[in-house]
Amino acid sequence: MKQRKRNLKLTIAYDGSDYHGFQRQNKVVAVQNVLEKALMKLCKEPIEVAAAGRTDAGVHAQGQVVNFFTDTIVPLERFCFALNRLLPKDIVALEVEEADRDFSALHCVKSKKYIYKVHTGPRPNPFLHNYSSYVNKPLNLEKMQEALKLLEGTHDFSAFRSAGGNDTSPIRTIYEASCKTTAEGFEFLFWSNGFLYHMVRNIMGVILNIGLERKPVEEVTRVLASKDRGEAGRMAPANGLYLHQVYYK
Amino acid sequence: MKQRKRNLKLTIAYDGSDYHGFQRQNKVVAVQNVLEKALMKLCKEPIEVAAAGRTDAGVHAQGQVVNFFTDTIVPLERFCFALNRLLPKDIVALEVEEADRDFSALHCVKSKKYIYKVHTGPRPNPFLHNYSSYVNKPLNLEKMQEALKLLEGTHDFSAFRSAGGNDTSPIRTIYEASCKTTAEGFEFLFWSNGFLYHMVRNIMGVILNIGLERKPVEEVTRVLASKDRGEAGRMAPANGLYLHQVYYK
Repeated sequence: MKQRKRNLKLTIAYDGSDYHGFQRQNKVVAVQNVLEKALMKLCKEPIEVAAAGRTDAGVHAQGQVVNFFTDTIVPLERFCFALNRLLPKDIVALEVEEADRDFSALHCVKSKKYIYKVHTGPRPNPFLHNYSSYVNKPLNLEKMQEALKLLEGTHDFSAFRSAGGNDTSPIRTIYEASCKTTAEGFEFLFWSNGFLYHMVRNIMGVILNIGLERKPVEEVTRVLASKDRGEAGRMAPANGLYLHQVYYK
Repeated sequence: MKQRKRNLKLTIAYDGSDYHGFQRQNKVVAVQNVLEKALMKLCKEPIEVAAAGRTDAGVHAQGQVVNFFTDTIVPLERFCFALNRLLPKDIVALEVEEADRDFSALHCVKSKKYIYKVHTGPRPNPFLHNYSSYVNKPLNLEKMQEALKLLEGTHDFSAFRSAGGNDTSPIRTIYEASCKTTAEGFEFLFWSNGFLYHMVRNIMGVILNIGLERKPVEEVTRVLASKDRGEAGRMAPANGLYLHQVYYK
């Protein structure tokens, strides 16, 4: 097969509510199916993308990154505008640039940031049902912040890894795990050199229990030290999770 | 038929994205179908609601009001909590109260407020595609505010009424028509003693053209005076519209 000329790095945002995750699938619609179809129309050749991370069903992205090889002659300054006309309203191309031949959106990742959104109150907000996880009791901000700090650094995160992932080593370094209040509730930030399968949602399950004061702050240390997924309890729902940003070497 | 004992006034909010409007329909799902089904489960008898306003497909409500007659013995202080457990996540019961026998959520309306949300920028925001109308060019806030002011007062709004409504007189009084900037873009408020069919969306079509500087501020006076729906041009999309609040005598 003839080698294609250009390797393009594309950043996209999407509302994952109506998709069965990012990764291309048969029978159900994934973001990748829809993106590759639009790219094929624009580039006038079949396109296969590699992505920084596979988001699960219902998970959103504010800054997913993909790369793909193409011979398209569409100028870069018109690329996103033209692509957005071919994409549905819940997927938006943000930025495109020319990359080196050996750039891979998957393999060259240096670190990633995920955000998790939660809202509280006497009733769930019907306008956030796809975009923020709902907790029906107040959350203790200080206790959650304390617990998140205990996760920063290099640890074996086996206790927060769901079965089914492809990752080999369970050792990851969290550069930042923090929480702030927002107009709607709380926003959690996780910045790490890599995330195990369901890692953020498993961590959030424990953090929300600490925020609800069902568990002490030290619960997070106990679960982490156990290296046992059974200790973390239930994971938090997908709707609050956003792949926020991807950093490359 | 035996008369039921209680007349309940219920305030609800809903994300209209996945519904074919408020009004009950055969074959497609409307908010009313889903609400009445949940009320039937809770009250253990068939329930028929009357609503303050029929929102169209894709239109949202932050404060829709309905009333219905029931013999339920569910205490009011537990009513919304119990109802919300039976409702899907995109419809939420906010408040319930006992009303006089002659109260009608439809016929006793004194005035209503609608909000219309718009966002601008180089690209549409994928997280707002159902919740805010997108305009790809900057909007002139001052010109829109000037034009909105010209709509306040008592006028014949025939030029902003779509065919198909049941309203008799086209005369309405707008107490407030205003616009402010928000984190995402613009929020328009319309407060009137009544709204004709598609009135807000037809007005917004003209206002956005003024904001885009395709038409002068006086366009709104010209269209209003024409009393001709053909003069208003295209109406703005449903996704930005919210029934905000209903006021009763």
